[in-house]
Amino acid sequence: MPHVYDHPRAALTVDCVVFGFDGGELQALLIRRGLPPFKDTWALPGGFVRVEETLDEAARRELEEENGLRNVFLEQLYTFGSVHRDPRERVVSIAYFALVKPEAVAAATDAAEAKWFPVSDLPTLAFDHAEILTTALSRLRGKLTYQPIGFELLPRKFTLTQLQRLYEAVLGHHLDKRNFRKKVLSLDLLTPLEESRQEGPHRPAQLFRFDPERSDRLKERGFLFE
Amino acid sequence: MPHVYDHPRAALTVDCVVFGFDGGELQALLIRRGLPPFKDTWALPGGFVRVEETLDEAARRELEEENGLRNVFLEQLYTFGSVHRDPRERVVSIAYFALVKPEAVAAATDAAEAKWFPVSDLPTLAFDHAEILTTALSRLRGKLTYQPIGFELLPRKFTLTQLQRLYEAVLGHHLDKRNFRKKVLSLDLLTPLEESRQEGPHRPAQLFRFDPERSDRLKERGFLFE
Repeated sequence: MPHVYDHPRAALTVDCVVFGFDGGELQALLIRRGLPPFKDTWALPGGFVRVEETLDEAARRELEEENGLRNVFLEQLYTFGSVHRDPRERVVSIAYFALVKPEAVAAATDAAEAKWFPVSDLPTLAFDHAEILTTALSRLRGKLTYQPIGFELLPRKFTLTQLQRLYEAVLGHHLDKRNFRKKVLSLDLLTPLEESRQEGPHRPAQLFRFDPERSDRLKERGFLFE
Repeated sequence: MPHVYDHPRAALTVDCVVFGFDGGELQALLIRRGLPPFKDTWALPGGFVRVEETLDEAARRELEEENGLRNVFLEQLYTFGSVHRDPRERVVSIAYFALVKPEAVAAATDAAEAKWFPVSDLPTLAFDHAEILTTALSRLRGKLTYQPIGFELLPRKFTLTQLQRLYEAVLGHHLDKRNFRKKVLSLDLLTPLEESRQEGPHRPAQLFRFDPERSDRLKERGFLFE
């Protein structure tokens, strides 16, 4: 096979920002590095891209190998290519972000040296992983304001209070309950269920599920100009 | 320098989707390939990433070398990594999209074998460049509905009619004039100028300029939930 570019080449990695939500705070999954560089420092799950696999396949393989995570919501985030981001040699990293349902959050830490951290209280991270994480958080915040995306972090059935807690955790500040409900319901994204859920001492709260078809329509038409 | 990954490596390229607007249709800048594979086929401007330059630097260098374009709005789009997207060997491409002001549109075609095509009537493209272009168009459409982004395609001073034509060209359909003006002005992104511009036989139309500071505030707070 002829080579198209006979010069030194960067190595390619994938790095995954994995978000989870425990009902209170937004969490990110980190791995403690066993080898230098940055030995014993926390880092994003990830690894080298094999020449025979796609980028998505590499990201999913790493999440499964390192964290036992399968079938998670996964989206390419951004490609990081600063020349000296790896002290050893040129490494370009295609970053992903993953959203994990509460059921899978516990499973993900079965892997040795993997741990969830609240995004408001992260340890020092290896390489440029702090920058990657900040980029992912900013993307998640941005998406939340114009796309129905947060549902991947919730149980399949949820109350409006749970949904509001998630929005507050991601956006990092309190939201007015009445305005929030009005806005969310006006988007016509949720299907009310016959069931309800006991939340505190009040009367049971209605459960909803997310409607992917309505969501697709909303994504297509956008929020502002249509 | 120790090598971190002693296995075959993909070659890395950047490919740029360059959009321009001539007042009527949204245009994309293409280059006719002089060498195989896909010799004589139209393709996106781009080339190999050098091991000592960042990805952004590679994209800007290619746009300048191939199209004489400098100081354009440039944003990373997505990284394309299908295993067989290049028939020769594994090539991963970091795609960018660029927005070019009308003043620069003419200059960009000084390069031999470069040409603007309306996005509604594109030729067959080399590699997976049709997919890259579709992704860029979809990003541009999406952004237009939630971010003040189209202004990079307009002259510095423009009328609301020019702005509406741009939105219509990007979105691909007609917009109601009154609704459009109401929405745009409500975003408080435009600074009215003392000048006006003659448009057809009617009374002169007010000129505006885009206010980047207001835009930053708007980006930060988003449109929907804040």
